[in-house]
Amino acid sequence: MKPDKRVISLSHGSGGRLMYELIQNLYLKYLGNKFLNKLTDACVLDLTSKQVVFSTDSFVVKPLFFPDSDIGELAIAGTVNDLLMLGANPKYISLSLIIQENFPFISLEKIIKSIAKASNKAGVLVVTGDTKVVDSNACDGIFINTSGIGVKLPQARLGFENIKQEDCLLINGSIGQHGLSIISARENLKFNVKSDCQSLEGLIIPALKEFKSDIHFLRDPTRGGLATTLNEICLGAHCCVIIDEAKIPLSETIQYSCEVLGFDPLYLANEGKAVFVVDKRIVNQLLKFLRKKSLGKNASIIGKIKDFKQAKVVAQTSVGSSRLIDMRDGDPLPRIC
Amino acid sequence: MKPDKRVISLSHGSGGRLMYELIQNLYLKYLGNKFLNKLTDACVLDLTSKQVVFSTDSFVVKPLFFPDSDIGELAIAGTVNDLLMLGANPKYISLSLIIQENFPFISLEKIIKSIAKASNKAGVLVVTGDTKVVDSNACDGIFINTSGIGVKLPQARLGFENIKQEDCLLINGSIGQHGLSIISARENLKFNVKSDCQSLEGLIIPALKEFKSDIHFLRDPTRGGLATTLNEICLGAHCCVIIDEAKIPLSETIQYSCEVLGFDPLYLANEGKAVFVVDKRIVNQLLKFLRKKSLGKNASIIGKIKDFKQAKVVAQTSVGSSRLIDMRDGDPLPRIC
Repeated sequence: MKPDKRVISLSHGSGGRLMYELIQNLYLKYLGNKFLNKLTDACVLDLTSKQVVFSTDSFVVKPLFFPDSDIGELAIAGTVNDLLMLGANPKYISLSLIIQENFPFISLEKIIKSIAKASNKAGVLVVTGDTKVVDSNACDGIFINTSGIGVKLPQARLGFENIKQEDCLLINGSIGQHGLSIISARENLKFNVKSDCQSLEGLIIPALKEFKSDIHFLRDPTRGGLATTLNEICLGAHCCVIIDEAKIPLSETIQYSCEVLGFDPLYLANEGKAVFVVDKRIVNQLLKFLRKKSLGKNASIIGKIKDFKQAKVVAQTSVGSSRLIDMRDGDPLPRIC
Repeated sequence: MKPDKRVISLSHGSGGRLMYELIQNLYLKYLGNKFLNKLTDACVLDLTSKQVVFSTDSFVVKPLFFPDSDIGELAIAGTVNDLLMLGANPKYISLSLIIQENFPFISLEKIIKSIAKASNKAGVLVVTGDTKVVDSNACDGIFINTSGIGVKLPQARLGFENIKQEDCLLINGSIGQHGLSIISARENLKFNVKSDCQSLEGLIIPALKEFKSDIHFLRDPTRGGLATTLNEICLGAHCCVIIDEAKIPLSETIQYSCEVLGFDPLYLANEGKAVFVVDKRIVNQLLKFLRKKSLGKNASIIGKIKDFKQAKVVAQTSVGSSRLIDMRDGDPLPRIC
């Protein structure tokens, strides 16, 4: 069989016949459903509730394909997770592509297949979309935007305003995987690190249904890593967060690789993790609950809300000292998601 | 006063402190509202109905600033109009930016101001967002994605399936303005053409409330122009569309400029136009109704649905002959929106 050497041309983004064919032969083939099939520039949805959650994210990750995942899965998991973090059951996704002229058709097909697989797994439908093609020096490969609508779970009561003194903080597993996997793939390093990129509906929805308003706040520590999420919590709730560094799950490979490369794993991006801020009464039950799920088998209680006197994050180290965990000005790794 | 020479750096997209400052000092300053101010990665919305319309569009227009408008206004008007075309009252917008490193802060501020003005005019709120910054050779200036949620007007009954034999086609004004304005700005030509870029809520919502289910279909002839929209109608409803070319509103400037440049105005993009397919019983009333509004003062009845035997668009020319209006393979003007 001859290799598929077709490429995307400017005309595929023109609104003309080639674009129509791209929609028919690629998007509808893999993602088709009763909404998308209508081929209108928007879609009509019948929601099951008037209370919804709405989110958007653009993905510019480099490289497009990385160990165990790619930009397609990332674009679905990222937006699905953002909806989950506000207590919604993710339902509908919009997909908007900006593609560089001469981008291989076969790579686009691989990405669309990956989007189809990830949407299917997360139980969401891609219901509307858009494609733009730009000249070859105007964009690097492909950028993907997904926006999402989820239906709010009636049990969920999440927000900075619900965070209370002595609330406990948990995370569902080892940090730094996504960030390290990207840098490893980008720089051709030989670290054996897979991205944790995955959607968390199988963990978050059951937890919210079980523990309801005792879960006070959720956030996924993506860009900027766990350290940034902890700082956002302390700034958003104006509270002091105390972290027990030894309790933060960290695989040996990540720890070793970070030491070699000089990265602090606290600032490395994750794409399949959630930080829970919960009532201390239920924290041990929740820990047990999470550890029974594959997505939470390495869950750990990592700290607590000390008080509301000062907005800061303090880490207690294993040797008994303590240090401030700051929000950094920049990121050691651009284009991580 | 010194000129503002600040530029966007990779760190502004890192999830760290500089990004936090960008959100506070730019996005919240101009776009702030009770949803956006919460600084969560998504937002909770209380809709007034369970029937909603959802749409997405990415904007890669070049140049970013063009006569009478810019990418900011375009990003709002484009998504608002897509929602309107499916019979929704546009309500909530997500805003996702991909910005090139070293992009001038002053240009970003100008665009955000323009987004604020256009949202305000259209009565929509920017409720959630995302910013990515990429290295300077990975993107050309700034790309903007907007997705939108609108609440379906109970009066609206729009869709290909509602198009009937002898339905009439109308357009609300002169074609080709946006396309020609962009090419003129891009190539530094001296044609005095302003973009028609604007949101159409002031025209579409009153028309749907007045004429209800007698309006069978709406579409905005953007990329690919009026010719492409007519072809989408004939393909979507599998019908034959007859157009009276002499009735298509076309300003003298556009006609002259197109002759000079060798463009067919039927294929030039519009950003403030809508094609109406309506019951013939109400077409004259609707025409009068549209002409009373500033957005429809040059409205015209341009053709009708002949039959459902063959999917094609036929134009009757002023000299009595007829020609097929095809969907083109490509676009004479990439990066038009």
